[in-house]
Amino acid sequence: MEFIYVLDILGTFAFAISGALVASDKKFDLFGVIIIAFVTAIGGGMLRDVLINAHPINWIGDLNYLFTILAAVILTFLFKSKIAYLSKTLFLFDTVGISVFTLLGLQKGLLLDLHPIVALIMGMISAVFGGVLRDVLTNKVPLIFEKEIYASACLAGGISYLILVKFNVPKNINFVISASVIIFIRLISVKFQLQLPKINDDLFGKS
Amino acid sequence: MEFIYVLDILGTFAFAISGALVASDKKFDLFGVIIIAFVTAIGGGMLRDVLINAHPINWIGDLNYLFTILAAVILTFLFKSKIAYLSKTLFLFDTVGISVFTLLGLQKGLLLDLHPIVALIMGMISAVFGGVLRDVLTNKVPLIFEKEIYASACLAGGISYLILVKFNVPKNINFVISASVIIFIRLISVKFQLQLPKINDDLFGKS
Amino acid sequence: MEFIYVLDILGTFAFAISGALVASDKKFDLFGVIIIAFVTAIGGGMLRDVLINAHPINWIGDLNYLFTILAAVILTFLFKSKIAYLSKTLFLFDTVGISVFTLLGLQKGLLLDLHPIVALIMGMISAVFGGVLRDVLTNKVPLIFEKEIYASACLAGGISYLILVKFNVPKNINFVISASVIIFIRLISVKFQLQLPKINDDLFGKS
Repeated sequence: MEFIYVLDILGTFAFAISGALVASDKKFDLFGVIIIAFVTAIGGGMLRDVLINAHPINWIGDLNYLFTILAAVILTFLFKSKIAYLSKTLFLFDTVGISVFTLLGLQKGLLLDLHPIVALIMGMISAVFGGVLRDVLTNKVPLIFEKEIYASACLAGGISYLILVKFNVPKNINFVISASVIIFIRLISVKFQLQLPKINDDLFGKS
Repeated sequence: MEFIYVLDILGTFAFAISGALVASDKKFDLFGVIIIAFVTAIGGGMLRDVLINAHPINWIGDLNYLFTILAAVILTFLFKSKIAYLSKTLFLFDTVGISVFTLLGLQKGLLLDLHPIVALIMGMISAVFGGVLRDVLTNKVPLIFEKEIYASACLAGGISYLILVKFNVPKNINFVISASVIIFIRLISVKFQLQLPKINDDLFGKS
Repeated sequence: MEFIYVLDILGTFAFAISGALVASDKKFDLFGVIIIAFVTAIGGGMLRDVLINAHPINWIGDLNYLFTILAAVILTFLFKSKIAYLSKTLFLFDTVGISVFTLLGLQKGLLLDLHPIVALIMGMISAVFGGVLRDVLTNKVPLIFEKEIYASACLAGGISYLILVKFNVPKNINFVISASVIIFIRLISVKFQLQLPKINDDLFGKS
């Protein structure tokens, strides 16, 4: 699964850059930027590992994540104005990132014999909570709660993975199919600006 | 202790609804509402279990909490405007909830041979930190820090429980008495709008 | 190392007072003040212990931290207006505190055979994240991200410690030297208002 590891690192890289950009817009100093990049990139997996008691947790067990994040911060520091031109590339990395994070988190949960529903939630936490922690630390309402079918894409891909496991589809093929589901839904939802419904009023009452 | 389990689920249900209402007022989408309901309802117990290393943590070890929260969100989604009429019922569930959460958290701490003071704090974290996490995630100053003798009621009930343990009062009777202490103080303090003192100025200095 | 334990307690005391002052400025009630003092003083070490799976975590394993924090809150409550006169003393305690927190956290990481880089980060988390959690709970952008070479001082002292370990410098002497590095950099940076660079624009682009 070396290919998936490369995608995992690419996703980490994209998440770290997005965190670094948010932090530098907030006029944080270098240290603050590193923390926010770090939390954005591996906060989700870190929370997952603490909740399921999987020690050593992600970045403690594999230093490559740390080095990837540091590289991302340095590049952001050196080339901030150029990075704007790369926004489509970054969006792609980011989308690949959430698909890989979701499925790796889900697999880790299954490996630890968690209930499939719990494993599914762990996949989503892996993909989503880095961004939530970034927003909490920069004192904003987490973006994920308000717009874009980001989490739903992860949910759909995770369910796809669990169903294909039932049908004994080989792991690698399952991974590629389910990741494609996530990537496809994300791209479509951004293109057509789809949103989940809100509870402005109850369905049966008048406003 | 099946009766207490039912109360625990009722409390979870009430906390989840209160979280869902806050989130829908913030115009969160469905996913955001579920997260906030979830965090409000079981964030306290989750934090407790992580701190005392009690794995699997609450909602991973018993899926009924998850299903209860989903049911609460769906009901809030369908009947939001009607729920306003139920505010007294919900307040009652919520009050029962904090009493049960406090005492179950405390008992869990004692079972793990923690110092009674630590077990007491674990009971309070169980009851209070769901709301704190809800407020942090919705970018508000945690309500609990500013008003209402909410935490103090939990503290009093927890101390009552510890004292009655010393006197070898049977567990179930102790549970009922100490839960009543919490419920009574909460109701009284809301009725008479009691508050804890603040540090506006020191007691001996002039303002 | 009894002397270091005393410094650790002094640092906890100073951190708790700083937390209590922030909370009382926010008009929190007594319970809120205790929570914020608590989180400020031992939040960093608590996060560290959860991340590296070191149970019982800091304040559960040694109740003296709790008692120190309660004493700090009571003193703040009684003598708030007088404490302003002690700001230099508190600043000194606080500075000693971060140096001790950093090095004790680092040592704990090394004892658990973590990679030196991870141990270094654990040292910094111990010193810095109490303040971050305080700011998150009081709904502010964490101060540490924006100003003062606070974290950098901890980083420099931690690196100093790791280098001296390589040269087999005795633990106690190493501790004193590396703590002095942290204290010196902190004092100098506050005196001369040094700051880390920010990413306002990239180094090579025009603005």
